[in-house]
Amino acid sequence: MYEFDEDTVVEQVGPGVFTGRLTDRWDIGSVPNGGYVLAVALAAVRRTLPAPDPLTVTVHYLRPAAPGPVQVHVETIKIGRQYSTASARLLQNGKENARVLATYGDLSAQMSAPTHVFGAAPELPPPEAATAQSTPGFVPPATAFGRRVEIRPGRTIFDPLQPGEPPELSGWLRFADGRPPDVHALPVLVDAFPPVVFRVLPPGWVPTIELTVQVRARPVSEWVRCRFRTRFIFGGLLEEDGEVWDENGTLLALSRQLAALPR
Amino acid sequence: MYEFDEDTVVEQVGPGVFTGRLTDRWDIGSVPNGGYVLAVALAAVRRTLPAPDPLTVTVHYLRPAAPGPVQVHVETIKIGRQYSTASARLLQNGKENARVLATYGDLSAQMSAPTHVFGAAPELPPPEAATAQSTPGFVPPATAFGRRVEIRPGRTIFDPLQPGEPPELSGWLRFADGRPPDVHALPVLVDAFPPVVFRVLPPGWVPTIELTVQVRARPVSEWVRCRFRTRFIFGGLLEEDGEVWDENGTLLALSRQLAALPR
Repeated sequence: MYEFDEDTVVEQVGPGVFTGRLTDRWDIGSVPNGGYVLAVALAAVRRTLPAPDPLTVTVHYLRPAAPGPVQVHVETIKIGRQYSTASARLLQNGKENARVLATYGDLSAQMSAPTHVFGAAPELPPPEAATAQSTPGFVPPATAFGRRVEIRPGRTIFDPLQPGEPPELSGWLRFADGRPPDVHALPVLVDAFPPVVFRVLPPGWVPTIELTVQVRARPVSEWVRCRFRTRFIFGGLLEEDGEVWDENGTLLALSRQLAALPR
Repeated sequence: MYEFDEDTVVEQVGPGVFTGRLTDRWDIGSVPNGGYVLAVALAAVRRTLPAPDPLTVTVHYLRPAAPGPVQVHVETIKIGRQYSTASARLLQNGKENARVLATYGDLSAQMSAPTHVFGAAPELPPPEAATAQSTPGFVPPATAFGRRVEIRPGRTIFDPLQPGEPPELSGWLRFADGRPPDVHALPVLVDAFPPVVFRVLPPGWVPTIELTVQVRARPVSEWVRCRFRTRFIFGGLLEEDGEVWDENGTLLALSRQLAALPR
């Protein structure tokens, strides 16, 4: 069993009530990665809804989570022919840490629909060659999360920005233990890169207020390539936009988060 | 009293329970505009949370709404020092049509924070001069919504696309009755343009599955200018990304929706 699957196991203990455990293997510092917290909540949603794919998922983070037991309460909002929607509350010690709103569907249902794609995966050397570009410090080496998800960046956060260039990071991602990515892993992968804002402001804790992931296709390759960009840093807030692409150039997911500035 | 304010009045009838009415003045065809439906739900959220500004708001549309009475049930999830979060259910005839998850805060709290902006408002002739570019048919003239929100597009949906150019629409927007836009009106304004996909596929009903609006600043001008873009049309789904800017060039909001293809 792969680490991601072990660490997102939930057990149903009542109608819509699940128990699980946030392990410390996905920590950034001493706080579980937000994408991982979302994935644990979605593990319970997935058990509740009949449709296989998370089409669009939004989480509002209310308090930092901590490694340890969790309860997930799932409310089924609608079971539809095409789409099914649920809400989930993730609780620790009786306090709600995150609220999720998710609509699931079937990504294989309309493969023959009209296709118009404007946009392409980031140009990167193959993952084997990208290793050399990965500098120590890109992901804090002491971070547990950095041992779960391997990042091979196209450039490091310490490269100076060209004038007028929006801060961007791109690179390859995979689970370090070789787990093949699937639609359920994408919420972790969109939150795996260090915040792009570190290319502009001194690093610090960047509290995510809200994260939305729209999943557009099922991954088929071991590596995925990502691009993250932040364009608007003002008023104490920033957005981070992400794209995740398959090795073969299929768009897998779009993400956007709203976060507060590093503190 | 302006039309938008008249048509988003809600009355509290119990703890977290509000009644209101979707009027037919915001219909597209015979269905109330999705941004207007969201605005009615948020009118109840706004009465419940102490913070003044909707920082990030997500709605999942479950069923088409219809003009007529609505109930809005608001669940206060967290009242925090900086951020407050609530969920809202919009019901008609006992059936839930939309579920909202919203975090409010105070956009005036951190005006002196570091500012890095990469991106600019669409270049448009001034709104007075843009009138000439507005062709009949840009918004269906028989549409009630088209009489509430005035659109002066930078180009029409009938201009042919250049090869490789992502479909985009930009233009000025204001309430036709002169209501000054504010943060509460932005959810309607981000949903006011015709779907950009009409530049690529034959027009039809485009069911929105999910819409997220991140509000970044309070509007100060009568007109706002917008840019909408769709890059990924495949598998029966599409995203539409929006930016709303003030006359003076401040970013007011980012939006993204996930929708099904026109049918």
